[in-house]
Amino acid sequence: MEGVDHLAHERNKSEFDVDAMKIVWAGSPHAFDVSDRISKLVASDPGFRKDNRSTLSRKELFKNTLRKAAYAWKTIVDLRLSEEEAAKLRFYVDEPAFTDLHWGMFIPAIKGQGTEEQQQKWLPLAYKMQIIGCYAQTELGHGSNVQGLETTATFDSQTDEFIIHSPTLTSSKWWPGGLGKVATHAIAYARLIVGGREHGVHGFIVQLRSLEDHSPLLGITVGDIGMKFGNGAYNTMDNGVLQFDHVLDVYSIAFASIAVMLWVSQVTCEGKYKQSDVPRQLVYGTMVYVRQTIVADASCALSRAVCIATRYSAVRRQFGSQNGGPETQVIDYKTQQSRLFPLLASAYAFRFIGEWLKWLYADVTQRLQANDFSTLPEAHACTAGLKSLTTTATADGIEECRKLCGGHGYLCSSGLPELFAVYVPACTYEGDNTVLLLQVARFLMKTVSQLGSRLSSKKPVGTIAYMTRVEHLMQCRCGVQRGFAELSADLVEAAVAHCQLIVVSKFIEKLQQEIPGKGVKQQLEVLCNIYALFLLHKHQGDFLSTGCITPKHAALANDELRSLYSQVRPNAIALVDAFNYTDHYLGSILGCYDGNVYPKLYEAAWKDPLNESVVPDGYHLYIRPLLKQEIRTARL
Amino acid sequence: MEGVDHLAHERNKSEFDVDAMKIVWAGSPHAFDVSDRISKLVASDPGFRKDNRSTLSRKELFKNTLRKAAYAWKTIVDLRLSEEEAAKLRFYVDEPAFTDLHWGMFIPAIKGQGTEEQQQKWLPLAYKMQIIGCYAQTELGHGSNVQGLETTATFDSQTDEFIIHSPTLTSSKWWPGGLGKVATHAIAYARLIVGGREHGVHGFIVQLRSLEDHSPLLGITVGDIGMKFGNGAYNTMDNGVLQFDHVLDVYSIAFASIAVMLWVSQVTCEGKYKQSDVPRQLVYGTMVYVRQTIVADASCALSRAVCIATRYSAVRRQFGSQNGGPETQVIDYKTQQSRLFPLLASAYAFRFIGEWLKWLYADVTQRLQANDFSTLPEAHACTAGLKSLTTTATADGIEECRKLCGGHGYLCSSGLPELFAVYVPACTYEGDNTVLLLQVARFLMKTVSQLGSRLSSKKPVGTIAYMTRVEHLMQCRCGVQRGFAELSADLVEAAVAHCQLIVVSKFIEKLQQEIPGKGVKQQLEVLCNIYALFLLHKHQGDFLSTGCITPKHAALANDELRSLYSQVRPNAIALVDAFNYTDHYLGSILGCYDGNVYPKLYEAAWKDPLNESVVPDGYHLYIRPLLKQEIRTARL
Repeated sequence: MEGVDHLAHERNKSEFDVDAMKIVWAGSPHAFDVSDRISKLVASDPGFRKDNRSTLSRKELFKNTLRKAAYAWKTIVDLRLSEEEAAKLRFYVDEPAFTDLHWGMFIPAIKGQGTEEQQQKWLPLAYKMQIIGCYAQTELGHGSNVQGLETTATFDSQTDEFIIHSPTLTSSKWWPGGLGKVATHAIAYARLIVGGREHGVHGFIVQLRSLEDHSPLLGITVGDIGMKFGNGAYNTMDNGVLQFDHVLDVYSIAFASIAVMLWVSQVTCEGKYKQSDVPRQLVYGTMVYVRQTIVADASCALSRAVCIATRYSAVRRQFGSQNGGPETQVIDYKTQQSRLFPLLASAYAFRFIGEWLKWLYADVTQRLQANDFSTLPEAHACTAGLKSLTTTATADGIEECRKLCGGHGYLCSSGLPELFAVYVPACTYEGDNTVLLLQVARFLMKTVSQLGSRLSSKKPVGTIAYMTRVEHLMQCRCGVQRGFAELSADLVEAAVAHCQLIVVSKFIEKLQQEIPGKGVKQQLEVLCNIYALFLLHKHQGDFLSTGCITPKHAALANDELRSLYSQVRPNAIALVDAFNYTDHYLGSILGCYDGNVYPKLYEAAWKDPLNESVVPDGYHLYIRPLLKQEIRTARL
Repeated sequence: MEGVDHLAHERNKSEFDVDAMKIVWAGSPHAFDVSDRISKLVASDPGFRKDNRSTLSRKELFKNTLRKAAYAWKTIVDLRLSEEEAAKLRFYVDEPAFTDLHWGMFIPAIKGQGTEEQQQKWLPLAYKMQIIGCYAQTELGHGSNVQGLETTATFDSQTDEFIIHSPTLTSSKWWPGGLGKVATHAIAYARLIVGGREHGVHGFIVQLRSLEDHSPLLGITVGDIGMKFGNGAYNTMDNGVLQFDHVLDVYSIAFASIAVMLWVSQVTCEGKYKQSDVPRQLVYGTMVYVRQTIVADASCALSRAVCIATRYSAVRRQFGSQNGGPETQVIDYKTQQSRLFPLLASAYAFRFIGEWLKWLYADVTQRLQANDFSTLPEAHACTAGLKSLTTTATADGIEECRKLCGGHGYLCSSGLPELFAVYVPACTYEGDNTVLLLQVARFLMKTVSQLGSRLSSKKPVGTIAYMTRVEHLMQCRCGVQRGFAELSADLVEAAVAHCQLIVVSKFIEKLQQEIPGKGVKQQLEVLCNIYALFLLHKHQGDFLSTGCITPKHAALANDELRSLYSQVRPNAIALVDAFNYTDHYLGSILGCYDGNVYPKLYEAAWKDPLNESVVPDGYHLYIRPLLKQEIRTARL
């Protein structure tokens, strides 16, 4: 079987230049080159093997992650990889680890919120991994409500030190990745108390463990919070619990504030709290950065699941055999297409919205440097909403892809269970998705209310520019007397609609650009139309009840959708090939490039530890007494 | 903290008689008594402990399941439990095991489809567990399409034996629970070949393993198919792979047919295939039975998740603190209510539809015995559709409940990840949910087409009786020329709508009965209205586009829904208390009865194997070389 491409007939069908589409997906020829090179490097190195994760015990799994993290770093150092290449390598190693927090939260927080002095002190250590940092914000009792954190940091003007303390059980730091077993340092958030007065929640750099023998420092109780959803999945991460018992923060100064949104706060030697004059809006810049990363990750995770489900749907045949011929490929069933192809379209839509958010972040950063804060509220609402929208759709989409693979999708060797389990926390971290939509709704309500009062003075810009065209809405003021909270469930729906509009319009904008390659643009147009019409079908109630469309329109849209599915069908395999994922990265027998699914499933089954012996451990103790009717005297 | 009820203030708020509701939920005072007694018996016996499942390796996990299965049987024997009590005990042990297939598929198949002679031979052995059976139908290459199975059973008239054989890799039996490591016998499905002629797929009893030493018999290759979704979850089950190499079925006769839907087929000694004169419709009776069980299980799984999410939503507080007072319980947020309360209503709705299906099965059985097949097609369509509807809604609902618990819902100790992972296969087994909806759609189309042609001669009965009232639909024949397959995605939506109508109307019928207990009926009315209006809101597009409601109606329905959420709020905790679940069965720290969540989470964390040592295994090899800048020379 080796070397035969069981999906060749599908690849021959495609009507566009797959190599050109790969460049579009990657974002640029350079980005494609780096991704292609690094993903193959990881895939070909047995040190990064990951197919055995589901059967490892927690301790074996975690130790193996430590090894991989060290091995990845060694590879980066040995090959002198650039920062971009190193990040790609960590991405393709595809295993959550303490390094994600060190590079993705600890370092950016110091870069984004530390003083120059602090940056000079900590960044060189962190870049070389002489220290390993984590980001200790959430507590057992507080997640979304950062202002409610209970940990205290009391300034002692006698010793010029901060005393960090966990006054209650619920103030235990809880969830921070890398904290449980690895990090030597944390950025810990605590309520600052100076001279008996509270000054809100600020960040502190705290050393947790000895750099000599890794034991926790005096007054620090730290450990792992236990198993999480799924096999392998996020259990490679040491999410931690941490209690401070009057710990002295010898690195002293509070350097970042969440609660009062200050760039840098200072406590002077005389114990005076000094607010910085750096504008609070800058903190939003960091949030925009982190969330645009999450949106980009959503397109990766969704496209991966879609790639698996699409390839397997072309391999799997069921029913419809004529005169003993082959059965019908399940991808040819309209019910399969109507569930799968909107997800394929979503993967592309999210890719392009992620690309656009990257641009938005660059634009916002540039404006901030020029003290222009005008677009920040819109950019913030936009990224918050898109984070919520794309992560929810991706989590649901992965599970839908798993179901589209039928029974075999339930096997760990399909890769989909682990992909789902490792992905779903994205709906909760960095802003719970519902909480974020409420922020968007609040922003929309504010914008609408300003439209009425001073339409000429403050025109909506960017993604809310369309609101200038809805002046007629202002005419039909409704009689609702209830408050925001009362109507929040409905406002969340409005926020989703707003975000969907952004995704659709940016997809359309993308198509207005020059896109080289035979048939590439045509395929993207089909996908864009599927994405838009699928949403129209799904939310037709909103369109109908507001009179935006008639039932006739809705029916026509549905007809068109069916026709688009037929157009995408011959190109489906090529459209997922364009993601350019290695079999290693996909981590799925069902999704393997050559489609040789059944022999691989069969072979993988025998590797389960239960198959190490033909007669199972426990037979003599627990099965034989049943069969021999000796259960009453058996020792169980 | 011991003994304090942190949810007492919630329980005091409730406006109805919880004990009376418990009887309603259980179905009868007797059913309540059995459930209550057996669930407490299981909960109080350390032999049935299950809180350590997520950290066990596959082999430890499986061995422990074997122990529990034997221990459960010992308990049943020692306490001389009735069949009803024994079934409840297995239910509350709450761990998938080979016994599920032995009692739930192997024995019912023999009872339902075997001859009297076969029943006399096999049932006594099976009832005493002198043999352990499984149900080997699906193959690596075939699930939904049973007629496509490839395994052969060739009758050898010389020796009067059947030779069972797996001619291809894809013909390997794949998925049967209990097959992998335990079952001594299987009902294996194979294409019957007599005198060179094929007679479709039939069931055969085949011995797999020696009753002396448990080794597989000659020609049999058998093993486990490997890890499945989730920690613990379905990995306690030995789903198996099986290949026959010309195995002689010494128990000879083919006794059940799936493909040609015969009750009993016979091959005579002379090698003649003899069709039975028992009507094929009887096989549908078994399917109705199995699927009504699945619907009943859906209400159990969903109510369990809802119980956890509701209690935790009352414990968890976030935001909204006034003057340093306590924060707002998250259950008081309208966004939380609008996601949680429809699921609470669904749990009750599914409970009652399950009860009704039980009645339907009894009714169908009675009619079948009187050779009345008139209601069978409708009963079959009805159970197929409701199996699909309730399992899909339950799987999605469990995951929604997990998300409603925020970050902590992602911990295994919340119980929700395992509940989801162990539940989702219900969407695929016993009929893939989409395939089932297509069956319903086909039935509906047939019914509608008959309405037009012979309206008076064959009136729709039961759950399709409403169609007699839609004669006007017959007037507006549409111009669609496309076939069923082309429109299948839309027909699936129609099938869902039909099934939703059944659930709503049976909930309404339930409320027309006498229901004792202060306030009980009123609460159920609120839940019924929530269920119906939530569906109307969710599918308002269908109602609007068909002109059944106006946008004004839709808005009013939404207003009413909000008001109903407020009515259910003070009763929410009592409504989940009425499920009468023990903390053992719930298996969730977040859902524990006393609401003392945080100390229990904190305590549970320290039990993770990673916390056995303060400095993690792997520190010297993989962390220290990083910190000490010795990575280039490290051995990784």
